[in-house]
Amino acid sequence: MIIVNTGNGKGKTTAAMGQIIRSLGHGFKVCLIQLFKSESFYGEQKILTKLDNLDFFSFAKEHPYCVKGVSPEEVINQCYQAIAKLKELANAPKKYDMFVLEEFNIALRDKFINENEFINIVKQLSQKSNIIITGRGSPQALIDIADLVTEMKEIKHLYKKGIDAKRGIEF
Amino acid sequence: MIIVNTGNGKGKTTAAMGQIIRSLGHGFKVCLIQLFKSESFYGEQKILTKLDNLDFFSFAKEHPYCVKGVSPEEVINQCYQAIAKLKELANAPKKYDMFVLEEFNIALRDKFINENEFINIVKQLSQKSNIIITGRGSPQALIDIADLVTEMKEIKHLYKKGIDAKRGIEF
Repeated sequence: MIIVNTGNGKGKTTAAMGQIIRSLGHGFKVCLIQLFKSESFYGEQKILTKLDNLDFFSFAKEHPYCVKGVSPEEVINQCYQAIAKLKELANAPKKYDMFVLEEFNIALRDKFINENEFINIVKQLSQKSNIIITGRGSPQALIDIADLVTEMKEIKHLYKKGIDAKRGIEF
Repeated sequence: MIIVNTGNGKGKTTAAMGQIIRSLGHGFKVCLIQLFKSESFYGEQKILTKLDNLDFFSFAKEHPYCVKGVSPEEVINQCYQAIAKLKELANAPKKYDMFVLEEFNIALRDKFINENEFINIVKQLSQKSNIIITGRGSPQALIDIADLVTEMKEIKHLYKKGIDAKRGIEF
């Protein structure tokens, strides 16, 4: 099953985290691969790294459009380390029941990874595992091959009321 | 902060679960109160009950429109046990940094709990804690007092392709 969480609202990442908890509860083995997330920054990572049956990889921790001094070339290189990892797992015997590919939609949108190459890997992986792909701006080609697509849509946001993001809530 | 996850798509509950993991990672104390969820059924509960700093209450495990032989009167009574618990916590000194109120939107929609009474409790609790309320069909009065509202919108669903829900993914 191929699942896509997209849209401009909150909940894409937290829904994937909740899905990991659900799957681990059923005894599944889960592989989480994150892009554009700093390990020390996010509260959920402190809990997730303690859980059995979850392997956790992080590549391209900083996005070049968000962090000064990070070059797109370096980020493309790091994204391709993630792609190499996925290819390796796609060609190996089944190791995981579920893959969670965090913010890969962003990497696709910004052309850091090749869309056709990624779609082919996802198709191959989906023959033996479930896959969740998150991030805003999911490309149509990915939506076309997905079984379940949810748009997290912002209806009302406190930023508009002038309140800063709160630690433990927003990150 | 008052957060509402609503809409007809997937991800309302899993996003709340992910939010719990994030908050626990920051050392927060969390209180999860669920309606219309069977404890033995959901994979995430097996993991969540093992975590420190999370208290977990479940009321009205079956919805009368979904399960035969469950009377609305009985469910209303059980929902009011949840309301009594919330009132008790709202009137006591701060014990939790975050409350997750699962499927309370459904109980509001189906008039199992009184909207004004619930809104007043949420307002009172929000003075000392963050609150996440989930479920489709959130009433406008709750959206009005919320800081952050996300609609999880179904774009594409495998049911429409004739595939059954899969254990470990959908529940």
